[in-house]
Amino acid sequence: QLTSGQRRCSCTEKGSNFIQQKDLGKIEVIPKSSSCDHVEIIATMKSTGEQRCLNPNSKWVKKMMTALINKRSSQSTHR
Amino acid sequence: QLTSGQRRCSCTEKGSNFIQQKDLGKIEVIPKSSSCDHVEIIATMKSTGEQRCLNPNSKWVKKMMTALINKRSSQSTHR
Repeated sequence: QLTSGQRRCSCTEKGSNFIQQKDLGKIEVIPKSSSCDHVEIIATMKSTGEQRCLNPNSKWVKKMMTALINKRSSQSTHR
Repeated sequence: QLTSGQRRCSCTEKGSNFIQQKDLGKIEVIPKSSSCDHVEIIATMKSTGEQRCLNPNSKWVKKMMTALINKRSSQSTHR
């Protein structure tokens, strides 16, 4: 599902509309550029290290990302 | 500014409140976990490959991330 190299989109498919958040290690967001005409969202699973493309136009994916970013930090120094 | 290893937060400092979007290669979002009690946002610069921690509690950073994710894809297959 992932292509290597820098000259194209990393995801060859539309990507998943849902992902298990429990096993989520990290999410990469790649802005659109001259190499790829749309934003790409790639999730890495914690347990397996597997990378999975997420559908950047999925409502669930957008909501999940927004919730992740807007979660309050528990460190007062980060406020 | 970045620590290696998996057992702690990756960012040792609060992180930047702003970043040049023009040179932005990708953004990694690491959800909070047993290793780190808050979400971390790490930007990689396109030209230098330099990694920079962003302040997850910065209003500008949150807005930028939300805008990035909600940008319309220009590929109809991604809608």
